[in-house]
Amino acid sequence: MKKRGVLVIVSGFSGAGKGTVMKGLMEKYDDYALSISATTRAPREGEINGVHYFYKTVEEFEKMIEQNELIEYAQYVGNYYGTPREYVETQLDAGKNVILEIELQGAMKVKELIKDVVLIFITPPSAAELKARLVGRGTEDMDTINARLSRAVEESVFMDKYDYLLINDKLDVCIDELHGIIQSERSKADRNVETINIIREDLKVFSERG
Amino acid sequence: MKKRGVLVIVSGFSGAGKGTVMKGLMEKYDDYALSISATTRAPREGEINGVHYFYKTVEEFEKMIEQNELIEYAQYVGNYYGTPREYVETQLDAGKNVILEIELQGAMKVKELIKDVVLIFITPPSAAELKARLVGRGTEDMDTINARLSRAVEESVFMDKYDYLLINDKLDVCIDELHGIIQSERSKADRNVETINIIREDLKVFSERG
Repeated sequence: MKKRGVLVIVSGFSGAGKGTVMKGLMEKYDDYALSISATTRAPREGEINGVHYFYKTVEEFEKMIEQNELIEYAQYVGNYYGTPREYVETQLDAGKNVILEIELQGAMKVKELIKDVVLIFITPPSAAELKARLVGRGTEDMDTINARLSRAVEESVFMDKYDYLLINDKLDVCIDELHGIIQSERSKADRNVETINIIREDLKVFSERG
Repeated sequence: MKKRGVLVIVSGFSGAGKGTVMKGLMEKYDDYALSISATTRAPREGEINGVHYFYKTVEEFEKMIEQNELIEYAQYVGNYYGTPREYVETQLDAGKNVILEIELQGAMKVKELIKDVVLIFITPPSAAELKARLVGRGTEDMDTINARLSRAVEESVFMDKYDYLLINDKLDVCIDELHGIIQSERSKADRNVETINIIREDLKVFSERG
């Protein structure tokens, strides 16, 4: 039997570089799976069912809610978004560490339900750097950037509800630190109850046999 | 100001290879300090005060107890052994991670007093391997080996009181896993309260300034 993987939630300010860090992690190491969300919004051009999202009708989605098939869900601009439980469980059982890239509220909900989830908050090294990155994208006007900064102020109140704070200064370092945190979590005594019991039993047998 | 180091306790069965792992960690990485114990036992040939132990008279040791200068202490075969607080604090403040190689009872006492200490239990991959290593040393008779195995049975009851279980199968891997665990602990949100507060304040200022 493969050792069960670790369920990880990654959140962070818009502009913290979460997407790039996730992409780098997946490319560099093969023991991770990114959770795929279900949504009722229509697929955009080029998006593929089961790759970008699982596309559902409102009826299908609400049935999933009823049957407790979602780990968490939320409504956003008139559409449902949620995390299907089955994909996550299958991957964890196969020994993969599953990463959910979800926002604060979702993260807090999952934490309440699943005790051993690991919550990681990614932040740029400073507020100045966050602003510089948002401006540097060159795709948004100052109103949008300021709205993102205001949002970051609100989110920053909850940073200490996370288990780990990961500072995304240099991309490579950040990817390796993320990997290191998740690998260390696999060594937690709580995640090794079975191994502990085997060693205890074997020691007893060996000691009695002399 | 340097970020404070992590206080780590490493315990494990006799024969688990703790000493070799510690030595390898110190040689490979420079951000660690091994705590030096104080003792009332006489120095053995070749032992140096302040390197192997801090050698104390019974009166000196009991004064250290009275003045709360020891993190933990115990009596063993008529001698006192303990961990002086000052050395540990100085090293932690200098940003070094300090490792105490102490046994179960001491580990549990320290955990009660110091909330953020990290407890790591090192074990060989199996009981068979532990016995093989004890026999392989070739320095002990079977009675002593069996006594060590009985002791391991008793200690194994408390393995789940530790934070991490570290399996010492291959030495190099074990050293790097130990390093990885301690590095990850440095990213814990609880250990980064100051950084979180700075980012929060800065974000507020940036957001208000627009």
